[in-house]
Amino acid sequence: MRAVQVIGYNTKLQLTEIPEPQVSGPLDVVVRIGGAGVCRTDLHILEGQWAEKSGVELPYTIGHENAGWVHAVGDAVTNVQVGDKVILHPLITCGLCRACRSGDDVHCESSGFPGIDTDGGYAEYLRTTARSVVRIDDALEPADVAALADAGLTAYHAAAKAARALRPGNVCVIIGAGGLGHIGIQVMKAISAATLVVVDSNPAAVQLAVEIGADQGIVADGTQIAQVLELTGGVGAEAVVDFVGEGGATADGVAMLRRAGNYYVVGYGENIDVPTIDVISTEINFIGNLVGSYNDLQDLMVLAAQGKVALHTTKYALDEFQQAIDDLDRGLVRGRAILIP
Amino acid sequence: MRAVQVIGYNTKLQLTEIPEPQVSGPLDVVVRIGGAGVCRTDLHILEGQWAEKSGVELPYTIGHENAGWVHAVGDAVTNVQVGDKVILHPLITCGLCRACRSGDDVHCESSGFPGIDTDGGYAEYLRTTARSVVRIDDALEPADVAALADAGLTAYHAAAKAARALRPGNVCVIIGAGGLGHIGIQVMKAISAATLVVVDSNPAAVQLAVEIGADQGIVADGTQIAQVLELTGGVGAEAVVDFVGEGGATADGVAMLRRAGNYYVVGYGENIDVPTIDVISTEINFIGNLVGSYNDLQDLMVLAAQGKVALHTTKYALDEFQQAIDDLDRGLVRGRAILIP
Amino acid sequence: MRAVQVIGYNTKLQLTEIPEPQVSGPLDVVVRIGGAGVCRTDLHILEGQWAEKSGVELPYTIGHENAGWVHAVGDAVTNVQVGDKVILHPLITCGLCRACRSGDDVHCESSGFPGIDTDGGYAEYLRTTARSVVRIDDALEPADVAALADAGLTAYHAAAKAARALRPGNVCVIIGAGGLGHIGIQVMKAISAATLVVVDSNPAAVQLAVEIGADQGIVADGTQIAQVLELTGGVGAEAVVDFVGEGGATADGVAMLRRAGNYYVVGYGENIDVPTIDVISTEINFIGNLVGSYNDLQDLMVLAAQGKVALHTTKYALDEFQQAIDDLDRGLVRGRAILIP
Amino acid sequence: MRAVQVIGYNTKLQLTEIPEPQVSGPLDVVVRIGGAGVCRTDLHILEGQWAEKSGVELPYTIGHENAGWVHAVGDAVTNVQVGDKVILHPLITCGLCRACRSGDDVHCESSGFPGIDTDGGYAEYLRTTARSVVRIDDALEPADVAALADAGLTAYHAAAKAARALRPGNVCVIIGAGGLGHIGIQVMKAISAATLVVVDSNPAAVQLAVEIGADQGIVADGTQIAQVLELTGGVGAEAVVDFVGEGGATADGVAMLRRAGNYYVVGYGENIDVPTIDVISTEINFIGNLVGSYNDLQDLMVLAAQGKVALHTTKYALDEFQQAIDDLDRGLVRGRAILIP
Repeated sequence: MRAVQVIGYNTKLQLTEIPEPQVSGPLDVVVRIGGAGVCRTDLHILEGQWAEKSGVELPYTIGHENAGWVHAVGDAVTNVQVGDKVILHPLITCGLCRACRSGDDVHCESSGFPGIDTDGGYAEYLRTTARSVVRIDDALEPADVAALADAGLTAYHAAAKAARALRPGNVCVIIGAGGLGHIGIQVMKAISAATLVVVDSNPAAVQLAVEIGADQGIVADGTQIAQVLELTGGVGAEAVVDFVGEGGATADGVAMLRRAGNYYVVGYGENIDVPTIDVISTEINFIGNLVGSYNDLQDLMVLAAQGKVALHTTKYALDEFQQAIDDLDRGLVRGRAILIP
Repeated sequence: MRAVQVIGYNTKLQLTEIPEPQVSGPLDVVVRIGGAGVCRTDLHILEGQWAEKSGVELPYTIGHENAGWVHAVGDAVTNVQVGDKVILHPLITCGLCRACRSGDDVHCESSGFPGIDTDGGYAEYLRTTARSVVRIDDALEPADVAALADAGLTAYHAAAKAARALRPGNVCVIIGAGGLGHIGIQVMKAISAATLVVVDSNPAAVQLAVEIGADQGIVADGTQIAQVLELTGGVGAEAVVDFVGEGGATADGVAMLRRAGNYYVVGYGENIDVPTIDVISTEINFIGNLVGSYNDLQDLMVLAAQGKVALHTTKYALDEFQQAIDDLDRGLVRGRAILIP
Repeated sequence: MRAVQVIGYNTKLQLTEIPEPQVSGPLDVVVRIGGAGVCRTDLHILEGQWAEKSGVELPYTIGHENAGWVHAVGDAVTNVQVGDKVILHPLITCGLCRACRSGDDVHCESSGFPGIDTDGGYAEYLRTTARSVVRIDDALEPADVAALADAGLTAYHAAAKAARALRPGNVCVIIGAGGLGHIGIQVMKAISAATLVVVDSNPAAVQLAVEIGADQGIVADGTQIAQVLELTGGVGAEAVVDFVGEGGATADGVAMLRRAGNYYVVGYGENIDVPTIDVISTEINFIGNLVGSYNDLQDLMVLAAQGKVALHTTKYALDEFQQAIDDLDRGLVRGRAILIP
Repeated sequence: MRAVQVIGYNTKLQLTEIPEPQVSGPLDVVVRIGGAGVCRTDLHILEGQWAEKSGVELPYTIGHENAGWVHAVGDAVTNVQVGDKVILHPLITCGLCRACRSGDDVHCESSGFPGIDTDGGYAEYLRTTARSVVRIDDALEPADVAALADAGLTAYHAAAKAARALRPGNVCVIIGAGGLGHIGIQVMKAISAATLVVVDSNPAAVQLAVEIGADQGIVADGTQIAQVLELTGGVGAEAVVDFVGEGGATADGVAMLRRAGNYYVVGYGENIDVPTIDVISTEINFIGNLVGSYNDLQDLMVLAAQGKVALHTTKYALDEFQQAIDDLDRGLVRGRAILIP
């Protein structure tokens, strides 16, 4: 089959012919790829940023946001059948550790990560296990949802966690109206009656955020803290979900937070650097957020099937991978780039 | 009546004769003081550290950890009667704001703080309201529990919050085995089956911690992180409750924390300074902790009545206030100093 | 002022002239009534069903669903000002008991209930306290929201409680598409992405339920259990919210419930009569629901201001009270009847 | 190997020689039995009560409370090694359904139950899977803990659920001081500071309950409701955990419950038969309880290793199975009967 592989760092990806993956274990699932998201992380992999951390041996097939159709299953697979439309949770998890057994499989003690440390989805087929495949609604197409598998799932996870603590009319500031922020806004609107205030330095992004449901948009021009305080009667927001995490976002966000408020860290780059006296005197919390669990991905696919969460995508044939990568690198992709074998 | 008052900053406290407080509002409660804790905060008040923040007018009566007997009540007081033994929640709260109506009265939008911004308990009588008085068990004496009103309540609040997320055998590191730490250990033992690991730089404090129930004591000699990791199979603790918050405690504590673990900030001094990438990749949380609520104080008094939480005290007559202050300042008080009118 | 009073049981209500209520305590609030809901409970009061339970002395003013404008306030009232538009929580609560201090004021140990055991809102003015008045948005009118004060609040309370345990796509069966059911449906749609299946014996009510947002409507014609099971792949619904509670609704509802499902009891009449072996082998829960708390009423008013929850009302002048009562008794009121002084 | 099998209903069990079970799947685990609990359910199986429900084909090996040592493992087993001491969760679960992936594996959509619907533990060896084996502390012996695998686990599950909603000094009534009740009391004492009131009709059982930690013992002589109300100032208990569920226990228990209280159904026999008006006017909840999850069993084994939960056992050699069964049937077993191969 055709697969796009990393053959070296700081070297271009290469389209090669490799053998199709086969079911070898009883829980194995081979998926025919319907769409593979092209993600900024893929650029970082090529730059070698993940080389040491993942320890992956080259060459290998890249691509960690995958959806398609079940092509073959092992003997013990009971949750999907050949032909089912599926999206793939980014991790392959063990199912035996306490984290896996508590619905918190993201913290599995022994997980794999196709596209990062084993063969991924820039290919015609990919092998994963029954624990990673989530069936999707008939009305959804793999190529349309593939990019929700990782970035979208992270946004869902953080937004759903924040929503659980928000009552109607509580104010939630969303910092960053990019790809994750857009998913976060849609998720919040679907499962809460919180008032959403979106802050971004890009006026067009703010505008779009308001169009998809944000109650207030604020262009970060230096007055954003003051604006949030004014909108909240001077007391600040019950929650801040920070999809940026750099360039001063965390200091801004903390200043926008109400007493006993929750700060959800999603984006990263800079340090959280806050006096403990401020943490205790206002009794605020900082809540870390990694990618969502398998259960989260099921829930997100429900919202997608209900038409409440959608993602704009730009599709490329698999052999146009270089164009997709280049477009992403140059900021030319509208929404998310998807490779279709 | 006799009262010990702040008459100026960087000036000694003065024992004066002032009029007894009277019930003036329907929810007022006048309490005959049975014991007033002498707290390090009182030293800071005298140094003027709170002058601007509290805005209190001098002279005023100091003392914010108070217990005694109900002496007089307003018309609308239904929860206590004259003669009842009570401990006083440190705040006088409004009862009308959302925080007060959610069991979170510590974040009352309009609260007073006797001993800080209005007359406190280094006196024969103190006026508060029905919303601040917690009846205590017949078996308890005001002078024995007074110091639980603020410092103890803070430790209870943090420990009880941590305990709610801990299952049997989960590891909870307690940083700091001083006054708050000791209360925290006793509370944890009373309401959880977590494994308690106590870290302190003072070997005697560690020893005492183990005597009152800690499962493991670690003297912070530079190997404390390694020791906690070894005790936890290399993965770290499910919770860290940090009663220190300075001198490198927060960096230590974060290094001791397991993936998806909770860091409870109680002590303060230094900054939390952690890369957002670390927060999200391990999905840890930082949980702020202020003093406990009125309900927390009721619960703590239950534990005290059950004999599960006790505090060593050194008692002074009210007119020995200067001795008590001096002893505290010189580190000569065993347990907590209590003034008894 | 004019007031409509109960002068005897099984006797008609009487419009009388009585003195305006005055502020007598520091937390008192006198409200100029803008609308008072006419509720089926009022018919039961007239039949004497509440006489013994309430112990109210006749004559007294009836009416327990009230909204209006603040007319006068006591000295200690800080949460509203004269002129504010308000809706009234049905209970006057003490603010001092543990229930009041935990956000659970419905279980106040010492509460009053205007319209039931003290003078209510079929009048020009009503006296309550600061603890019962919820400010409403400028865009809302007292007469439009008054009927949300009790029936609507009950529906909100149950629906919001159910929503907290529902993930996207979980199935929630709502039994009963009458007044409470309609509020419940709107609340659920506003704060969850659950799939709502509404069951009612009246086809018109089912039709209307679907128009306001139910995902599926089922006419209870004897096949309702089978239909719910079919919709849920044979496993049943994660939640049943039962606004009926009689005529076999509870047996139906239990049969529709999934393993580990939650049954929310709101309507009443018959007994829950279920073998304990069934409760434990399926591990289902029965959750009681009384009227909502003050905080719930604040939240419901947010949803009303957001336009997410609305109620159809038919308005009558105060002196048309008999017509309103008669229309209600004969089933001629569309939506809820409201008296306007 | 030797195994004790059901060869017909209403027929005696038979000790037979059958082949040792072998690892056939990658997640299989063969356990050398160290102890198998003899449970009342085993008597019911012999009477044919489970024949239809389980659909098991005869002959098969009985015994569903098992512990021992890992004897052989499949290729994919990562959580235990040959030689490990283990206790067996009573169910063999799929690991793929939503229940399994949410920590709620008791509701697995496709589970097996050794000793009920497949070969159990009255034998030298038993085959299960990696998902059912819980490693136990070196200090514990399989024969001592085996009976905690099912009955003890059920008690843990209910008590731990109840404890999560109890604050210090809240009153928890435990109805039934038999085997489950004793475990429940020990668990409650280990993880909460609730006040435990134990009710049983057997004075000796009440006496023993108090010895192992109950705060109050009440002999059910017709005054038990009155006694609980008196102990609780007339308002009732925050929680009732009912290990009996027959003979009027549920009516008693409901009468002992406070407003907004929780009733935990564990024992079974009679119906819960309560007017919905009572459920809603007091806003009480009925909480079903099945056996605990795998995670619960891990937690219970922690309490056992900490010495906080212990069970009295009477041991029999495997070939004394008939004696054990007869003793149990005649009420002659002190604690729990354990077969040791």
